[in-house]
Formats: sequence, structure tokens, C-alpha cells
Amino acid sequence: MTNRQIVIAELPTAALTPAHFNLIETPMPEPGDGELLLRVILMSIDAANRSWMKGATYRAAVNAGDPMPTYAICEVMTSHSPGFSPGDIVAAEATWSDHIIIPAHRVMKLPKIEPLSHHMSVYGIAGKTAYHGLMTIGQPMPGETVLVSAAAGSVGGYVGQIARAMGCRVVGIAGGPEKCAWVTETMGFDACLDYRDPGFGKALAAACPDGVDVYFDNVGGRILERALNLMNERGRVVCCGAISQYDTDNVTGPRNLPGVVVVKRLRMEGFIVTDHTRDDPRALRALRHWVNAGQIVVTEDIVEGLENAPHALIGLLSGDNKGKRMVRVSADPG
Amino acid sequence: MTNRQIVIAELPTAALTPAHFNLIETPMPEPGDGELLLRVILMSIDAANRSWMKGATYRAAVNAGDPMPTYAICEVMTSHSPGFSPGDIVAAEATWSDHIIIPAHRVMKLPKIEPLSHHMSVYGIAGKTAYHGLMTIGQPMPGETVLVSAAAGSVGGYVGQIARAMGCRVVGIAGGPEKCAWVTETMGFDACLDYRDPGFGKALAAACPDGVDVYFDNVGGRILERALNLMNERGRVVCCGAISQYDTDNVTGPRNLPGVVVVKRLRMEGFIVTDHTRDDPRALRALRHWVNAGQIVVTEDIVEGLENAPHALIGLLSGDNKGKRMVRVSADPG
Repeated sequence: MTNRQIVIAELPTAALTPAHFNLIETPMPEPGDGELLLRVILMSIDAANRSWMKGATYRAAVNAGDPMPTYAICEVMTSHSPGFSPGDIVAAEATWSDHIIIPAHRVMKLPKIEPLSHHMSVYGIAGKTAYHGLMTIGQPMPGETVLVSAAAGSVGGYVGQIARAMGCRVVGIAGGPEKCAWVTETMGFDACLDYRDPGFGKALAAACPDGVDVYFDNVGGRILERALNLMNERGRVVCCGAISQYDTDNVTGPRNLPGVVVVKRLRMEGFIVTDHTRDDPRALRALRHWVNAGQIVVTEDIVEGLENAPHALIGLLSGDNKGKRMVRVSADPG
Repeated sequence: MTNRQIVIAELPTAALTPAHFNLIETPMPEPGDGELLLRVILMSIDAANRSWMKGATYRAAVNAGDPMPTYAICEVMTSHSPGFSPGDIVAAEATWSDHIIIPAHRVMKLPKIEPLSHHMSVYGIAGKTAYHGLMTIGQPMPGETVLVSAAAGSVGGYVGQIARAMGCRVVGIAGGPEKCAWVTETMGFDACLDYRDPGFGKALAAACPDGVDVYFDNVGGRILERALNLMNERGRVVCCGAISQYDTDNVTGPRNLPGVVVVKRLRMEGFIVTDHTRDDPRALRALRHWVNAGQIVVTEDIVEGLENAPHALIGLLSGDNKGKRMVRVSADPG
């Protein structure tokens, strides 16, 4: 039996293409003492995958020859650790592979919810990122206006739905009229503006007649600049990502920084979801409440097949996903 | 008797010059009911004066024909209000003038300390801005590294001295070797780097071997960009001003924003000193303690004569001051 893996053929110096990846076959690995053999079921596809290819960030850089790291939901096939049995479902930092070997202390057992994909979306990094960033940094209050970029993305949709549940006016930004319609119709945003529209700036201002109190920034760049101009005094900018800048070196900073931060006394703060692990139980309880109450619609974008992971990532960077993107490597246990 | 005033002849569209101001003589004003006639003693000269000429900020814009507003220390000459007597020393939002009329409820009585200029520097907006920004937003801890731009300016010198008193390593940035030497020798900074030096970037990194935990930004622009690259995870950026951008429209934002804010989970926050008025008594108690203990050296840069206020402001914008700049319009009471 062999194992398939996708490794990095070459680090990109410009836009990412399929040629930067190789699908290789290796012998099926054997777990050692204290290790597990895992079958990968679902892999999270994130803009962060691309940023890891640009050098060390909050984790070590990924280099040519390495398999791409990924957060994954897996089933235990073989356990050489007393704490785990075949059939257990676990979350693991895996790689783009059919199977991996991992020390048992590095995985976390998950409850067997149906479908397992909800562990990746609303109860996973996407939902927790939305919750922690919005609630801890954004601190929305009823009646405030919350603006969310990448509203059709994995995190943005949950941010907007949580903010609506908190009693805020919620305005999204997405790419293209079809996505914008999906954001308002499926997820109940008060408005969603197409940043590719020539009239975008005026439409955005018109959609935020009372200004913006919280801007949840998933993109950086010119949209951040525009949002800063709409912020109210004492507004909060949740810096969650800079997807517009991951796949390019042609970066320009917002020209109104730091002037507008001083004049309006804004707070801009970055975070990553694991900074808030101690509050995960609170996040999960709130997310379950909103899902059960019908206030959060779970949106997922599942690409089938390990071999399609590079395309799934490249497409994500150009914004072709709607909701949390993941790759299904194998089926949920029956 | 006449009164002299400096009014704005024309709003600048590029760099500020003396031609943007007119010195005019008007009849000596007469206070009405509930009003005071004040003699202006000292006027604060601030980069903010320039930003008010660029449109509405946290205060209304200043327009052609208006006298330049200023924070001032004044003596009451005539009082038509029961709460004030001739000879009282007050702080007021005045204008660039020998005398002004103001409703009594808009001034604040000051204790008669010697010299009165200390109300403008260490116990005034400069010292309070340094205290509130550093302590509330920067939250320095012993052993951390605090970086301060415009270290020879009115606020920067106090920021650095407070941070030293808090047990931090303090690195300043200033323009020119003479100013840098003044910052380290007079105010005890651990190091001060000249941003005009071609080797500035390397020297700055070498002066911060453990990275930067708090950056007190008085300038924005390329120095902010460079400081962001030196920040440690969870670092705090106190956004106090953007003096490099007040006198130009050729602004470029820091190219590493917001990416570096996300990756390092930085917090950037703007403020103005009046946001923190309720904590002023605490600030003044701490500042008096440090002055009395010799941990803060009071630095002031006093320009003589109302007629020299435009030059004092233009010079400030090009960084020719050392310490808090003010204009003496008339003498302290004997």
C-alpha cells in the first residue's frame, strides 16, 4: 500500500500556480511507539497556507520539498498509544496527504458530530476566528454598524451573522454581484457591496449611513483604506488577514495610516485564533446556540479529492469560494 | 489701546510658509457679561495647529480669516464673572493674540507654579499626552523595550523618561546627531538614532537587540513601517501623531500594514489627550513624583514674541525644536 502526498515543488516568487506542487507516492508509513496512523478525512484550505510560503510567520516557513501543512479532521486507523483506539475522530496538524503518522499527544479527540465538516466550519477555525475576533477585539454593541470584508469567505459570513445576532447593522463586501446576492439572501446581511463595481465607494458609504463602528478586515489594501475613512470615532478594526497581499509583492499601505487612527482614536488589533484557546468553550457554546436558534446558517465549500488541493487553494486566493473551503480526502465514517 | 492677532491669510495647499499668516491690529476687545479679558502669557505650538488647516479633525477646521486657535496660559485682566479676579492664572483655548475675550465657564484656573511654562510642558499637554498614551495604550512593563520617535520633541522626551522610570530600555529616534546626543545626554535615553543617517535601519535594529515591545509613534510614514518590522509579538503601537504627514499631501502608508499587525498580533491605537481627562489627577501626581525624584528632566523650547508664532510653527514642522515648543507673548506675573 502506498500513501499520496502533495509537496511543494518550488516556492512561488509571484502568483501561486499548480506547477508549485507535486503529487508524490510514498510507502505507507508505520506508526512508532506512542504514535498514531491517521486517515485524513477533511483538510482546511486557508489563505494562511499561502502566507506560510512567504517565510516564517507565527509558524516556521514552509520550504520546497515539504508537504503542505494543514489543519485536518482524521480517523485513527492504528494506535500505538493507550489513549486512542481505531475509529476515533481527531483534529491534527496534518499535511496534504491520504495518511499521516503523528505523536498521539499532538492530536485532539473530537466528538462525532454529523456532518464532521461542521468541525471545520462553524465549530472550527472559521467560526472560532469569527467569534474571538469580533467579540474580543471588535466588541460590537447593539445598534452599531459592523462592516465585514470577504463576507462570502469562510470567516466573514460567520462574523456578519454573529454581529446580526448581537443586534448590529451588518454590511458585507464581496467580489461580484452573484456573491453579494448570496451573502444577503443566504446569511441575512443588511447589505453587501461588490468591490469590483466602479461605484463601490459611494455605494459603501450609502450602505453605512451612521458610519462604521467595527470593521472586520480580512483583506487589507485599498478596501482597508476605504473602511478607515468610514470609521466612527473610537471604532475598532479587527485585523484578521491580508488576503489581498498574500499572493503578491506589490503591496501599498493604506495612505490614511496612521493619521486617521490618531484623529478618530481608532484601535486596530491583530490576532490569531489560537491566542484565544482558553475562551474556546465559551465560543462553542455561543455558536451552538446561534446555530440551533437559526441565527447562523452554516456555509461550507467542499472540494472533492486530495489531488484537487492545489486548485482549491489557488482558487481561494482569487476568491472563488463561498463559505469555508475544505478538501474532502476520504469519506466520513459510516 | 489695540490688540494684536495673527490670522490665517490663506490656507496652505503645500508646505506652510509665513505668507499664510497676517499680523493684524484690532481694537482692544471689551468683555461682556460673564466674560473675561485675558492677557496671553504663553501659547502652545503644536503640529496639530497644522493639521487643523487641513480640514475638520477632532475639532472644526480652521479657515482663512480665522485667528489660529491655541492652548494658552493667560492672566485675568478684567473679570465680569464672580468666579474670577484680576491676577488669576488660567488655561484657555485662546488664539494667537495679545489679549482675548472668553466666557468664564470655558477657562480653567491654574495653580501659580514657577515657572508657569511647566503648565505647558511636563504638567501640560506634552507631559499628559506622554503619560496617558504610554501608560494606558502602551502599558510598558519592566524589562521591555520602548521605542519613541520624535524623541527630541515635546512629547517624546517625556515618553522616554517615563518609560525609563518604569524600568524599560528606551531607544529614541530624532533628526541629526546633535539632537540625538541631546536626547541621550540630557534625558538619559539608552540610545538615540538619527533617522537621516544612511545606516539608520541597521543601527536601529542593533539598538533594539530584544525587539520592540512598545512603539510610541509621533511621526507615521517610513519610520512607522520600520518600527513595525522590529515589533515583538503582542507589541503595542501608540499612535500619537503623524507629523511627517501633516505638511504634505504626498503620503504613502506603511507597506507592511495590516499584514504585520495580524502576524504579530499587534495592537495599534490612537488617542488624544482629552480622552483621558478623568485620569489627569493620577497623571499629574505621577509626573510630579518623577520630576521631584529627578527621573524627569523638564525640557522646554520657548520662542519669544507673538509675531514669531508662524516661524515657531513652521520650524516645529521641520523638527527644529528641542523639547516642548511654546511662544512667550508676555511675561509671567512678577
